[in-house]
Amino acid sequence: MNFLRILFLGDVVGEPGRKAVLHHLPELKKELGVGFAIVNGENAAGGRGITPRLSIELLRAGAAVVTTGDHVWDQKEIVDYFPTEPRLLRPINYPPETPGAGSVVLESPQGPVAVLQGQGRSFMQPALENPFLLLEAEIDRLRQDGVKMIFVDFHAETTSEKIAMGRALDGKASVVVGTHTHVQTADERIFPGGTGYLTDAGMCGPEDSVLGRSIESVVWRFKASMPTRFPIADGPVRLCGVIADVDPGSGRCVAIERFQRTVTEE
Amino acid sequence: MNFLRILFLGDVVGEPGRKAVLHHLPELKKELGVGFAIVNGENAAGGRGITPRLSIELLRAGAAVVTTGDHVWDQKEIVDYFPTEPRLLRPINYPPETPGAGSVVLESPQGPVAVLQGQGRSFMQPALENPFLLLEAEIDRLRQDGVKMIFVDFHAETTSEKIAMGRALDGKASVVVGTHTHVQTADERIFPGGTGYLTDAGMCGPEDSVLGRSIESVVWRFKASMPTRFPIADGPVRLCGVIADVDPGSGRCVAIERFQRTVTEE
Amino acid sequence: MNFLRILFLGDVVGEPGRKAVLHHLPELKKELGVGFAIVNGENAAGGRGITPRLSIELLRAGAAVVTTGDHVWDQKEIVDYFPTEPRLLRPINYPPETPGAGSVVLESPQGPVAVLQGQGRSFMQPALENPFLLLEAEIDRLRQDGVKMIFVDFHAETTSEKIAMGRALDGKASVVVGTHTHVQTADERIFPGGTGYLTDAGMCGPEDSVLGRSIESVVWRFKASMPTRFPIADGPVRLCGVIADVDPGSGRCVAIERFQRTVTEE
Amino acid sequence: MNFLRILFLGDVVGEPGRKAVLHHLPELKKELGVGFAIVNGENAAGGRGITPRLSIELLRAGAAVVTTGDHVWDQKEIVDYFPTEPRLLRPINYPPETPGAGSVVLESPQGPVAVLQGQGRSFMQPALENPFLLLEAEIDRLRQDGVKMIFVDFHAETTSEKIAMGRALDGKASVVVGTHTHVQTADERIFPGGTGYLTDAGMCGPEDSVLGRSIESVVWRFKASMPTRFPIADGPVRLCGVIADVDPGSGRCVAIERFQRTVTEE
Ligand SMILES: [Fe+2]
Ligand SMILES: [Fe+2]
Ligand SMILES: [Fe+2]
Ligand SMILES: [Fe+2]
Ligand SMILES: [Fe+2]
Ligand SMILES: [Fe+2]
Ligand SMILES: [Fe+2]
Ligand SMILES: [Fe+2]
Repeated sequence: MNFLRILFLGDVVGEPGRKAVLHHLPELKKELGVGFAIVNGENAAGGRGITPRLSIELLRAGAAVVTTGDHVWDQKEIVDYFPTEPRLLRPINYPPETPGAGSVVLESPQGPVAVLQGQGRSFMQPALENPFLLLEAEIDRLRQDGVKMIFVDFHAETTSEKIAMGRALDGKASVVVGTHTHVQTADERIFPGGTGYLTDAGMCGPEDSVLGRSIESVVWRFKASMPTRFPIADGPVRLCGVIADVDPGSGRCVAIERFQRTVTEE
Repeated sequence: MNFLRILFLGDVVGEPGRKAVLHHLPELKKELGVGFAIVNGENAAGGRGITPRLSIELLRAGAAVVTTGDHVWDQKEIVDYFPTEPRLLRPINYPPETPGAGSVVLESPQGPVAVLQGQGRSFMQPALENPFLLLEAEIDRLRQDGVKMIFVDFHAETTSEKIAMGRALDGKASVVVGTHTHVQTADERIFPGGTGYLTDAGMCGPEDSVLGRSIESVVWRFKASMPTRFPIADGPVRLCGVIADVDPGSGRCVAIERFQRTVTEE
Repeated sequence: MNFLRILFLGDVVGEPGRKAVLHHLPELKKELGVGFAIVNGENAAGGRGITPRLSIELLRAGAAVVTTGDHVWDQKEIVDYFPTEPRLLRPINYPPETPGAGSVVLESPQGPVAVLQGQGRSFMQPALENPFLLLEAEIDRLRQDGVKMIFVDFHAETTSEKIAMGRALDGKASVVVGTHTHVQTADERIFPGGTGYLTDAGMCGPEDSVLGRSIESVVWRFKASMPTRFPIADGPVRLCGVIADVDPGSGRCVAIERFQRTVTEE
Repeated sequence: MNFLRILFLGDVVGEPGRKAVLHHLPELKKELGVGFAIVNGENAAGGRGITPRLSIELLRAGAAVVTTGDHVWDQKEIVDYFPTEPRLLRPINYPPETPGAGSVVLESPQGPVAVLQGQGRSFMQPALENPFLLLEAEIDRLRQDGVKMIFVDFHAETTSEKIAMGRALDGKASVVVGTHTHVQTADERIFPGGTGYLTDAGMCGPEDSVLGRSIESVVWRFKASMPTRFPIADGPVRLCGVIADVDPGSGRCVAIERFQRTVTEE
């Protein structure tokens, strides 16, 4: 096949999600013929951020790039780790002097692949700079450098901001996939300009849960309006993501498919 | 078949969505063997609310109940219409003296069916009362009255609040379906207590759009951070919703399936 | 004097604020001829909530009632303490089964005094029930019981919700004072119905600070959009609040004055 | 006197506020010895934005500069007017190609005076770029150009973001005054670096109102959680603002005083 098959896995939540991804990613890549894997790890550390060690584990298990999101700084030691690991991304729309980067280019057998991450601003904390202007500028720069295969993880809350981003980058990015809501959407498609799109990839975490957290704790919170702990749930894990085939010559997405699989650790 | 097949269609957006639903609902009900149809009409009037006339049209076209959402009051004449039409619902969690109701019981060949609507509070305006406590209390009341088939449209922004509601009502409601984001999710399932669930039904509106609005206008707004008009988009309409089979004896959901169909007005 | 003079002190922040209030409250009451003192203690414990011990200390130092706010549950041990101490209030607009209460009646030489607390819903977490309906209902109940002197601490973010509350309770409450922004406003007045009003009392905390926190840390956060610790600031403490004289016969406020004093611990 | 006395008037609301400012500004400038007047006009047009005509009227009445805020684009014709009138400001933290500017330098008898406006991001719509970084960069540029007298109107919701801005610009700006909440705060002071500061100037609008709007309408909205019209209130108008004396040699603020005056149109 001449296409680069990209597998993207959505927000990995806690130990159950992490273990499932570490265990199954190598075989999944083989089984599905994946040439390039990307994993969103913003909830890998007990649901709150990611540590250097967990980042290393995900990369060793076969992720070419690990993206994050609004939880990026939850684990303090990640701040100093960022400058040492360009394959770990944070949202691009932080101020210039922020540790880390929101864009990286890596080689693949089919040529260079760029992975970018942006963060939305509707109902999102903290307040960041305009992701539309910054992602577009970075993609223009990459394309001038001859990079054609460009994958964007847009971490955002609202469907309007995510779809608008997909449309804004149509014809510029190869694939735009949303993350953050932890629930996969059913609107995968290829836009007219050739950009593969999905509003949200969903998470990799316990399927009997609320976004990876214990059901009882979250339900209690909504009923009582009082704070409580939200332990990571247990039980079978659902891996959610997207598989996209990109044409190395044009950078266009030629196929996009949602991915879901429930796995049980025995 | 002994089951009641319920078809629910998500937020109908503007004239294109409305025309498509009015035109296709009768045949869809026949084709799919639907015994009870519910339509969310909160964006039927040019994207903003619903008028008495549009409510009547949807009911005449075969909707047993029309639900709404945060846009319920956008068209002023709806306020005085509510007391005259119990099959038009607004979120149940308004203060006691609010016009209209958030719950209605109707007869079906398989027995009484209750339809309820609640509105979420995470990132939602206006601030309303606790939907978890109010929906649960109303369902307890209905079940004491012998109503077993209970459908809930939970109009909310965040996946966490919607999944928590589905879980909170598991074993109490027959079906809990979310609306408001206009994008269908891919997490349909039947919870252990027998409640069919989907985080969001998606919308009935122009498929080349941002939530039913013109792509260019919304993208421009996110880039410029300035206000603009968001005209309803045109082109093919995608009808999105859910089909659920409910056992009249137990009130349990025995099957739940996502529904999507693109239709073109000729 | 026939009037009851009430001193209210706004949000006590951390050890500096707490020490200053504990040290100066007894002498302030004498100096100012205060008959009834109320202190908002929601930030007494290192800026985050209040502990049973700190509540006891404030009551022993001369506060008749301690109010709180959105930080009420920050210290876990306060949950079980609430049922034992009716003079510690939490916002009234929690669901019915919540520990604690949002209203208390105490005796004073001039007769019974009620203190109430509500929490706003504009830009406030968590989502609570309608404070306008609940405060008004509680005040109606109190007045039917013959209580005329009624003080309300309305803990809210926006000026619109606070002023609307003051106006909604005009002629029903004796005094409505806002808290939560930690900055005193300059709009004290007596409304036509006899209710004394101030949008925000301000805080009791380090005056060279951002809401009681170290200036450098908060400025850094706004520049970097990254999380950081916000240590309690040090240096001189500014005590902020309000002094209101209430007519025991009518319950009307006859005078309201802002209070500010900088104190230095030596 | 060698100092430049600046009078700043907060958000002018609707016809009552506008008429009062137009009528009283000339005499106020004389009476108070004002050398430079600035008026926030974001609510001048019926509460929603400002028109070219109203901008001209305020400038003719003696305002050297008119600032705005989040309501800046409410009146459409202002978009094309901006490029023609540099003395009308919009928040500086819009994207580069936005009409208008957030900074202007004008001559005064004591030398050049810069006026800047920024908009906060906490609880503010729309999402804009980082006001801390942009205001600081612009002030650095101005100071390198030899401008020493620098006045900043920071239009923001929260006290934390406003105080942090005042502190961030301490020693760089001559005066930092907040707007947007329509309620004057009582925390005027000169920071150690020489910057005069007030969290909010308050509004120029009907004093028996909720932020300039009819009391009944706003109270009803909070009770009913339903939309309604908010007509501009009538009755006496309170002019609110701040008077600051700036040393032209150093750019330091040497005195800052709150200003409030109730005026009645006869
Ligand atoms: Fe996230
Ligand atoms: Fe996440
Ligand atoms: Fe909708
Ligand atoms: Fe909605
Ligand atoms: Fe608070
Ligand atoms: Fe506080
Ligand atoms: Fe304003
Ligand atoms: Fe404003």
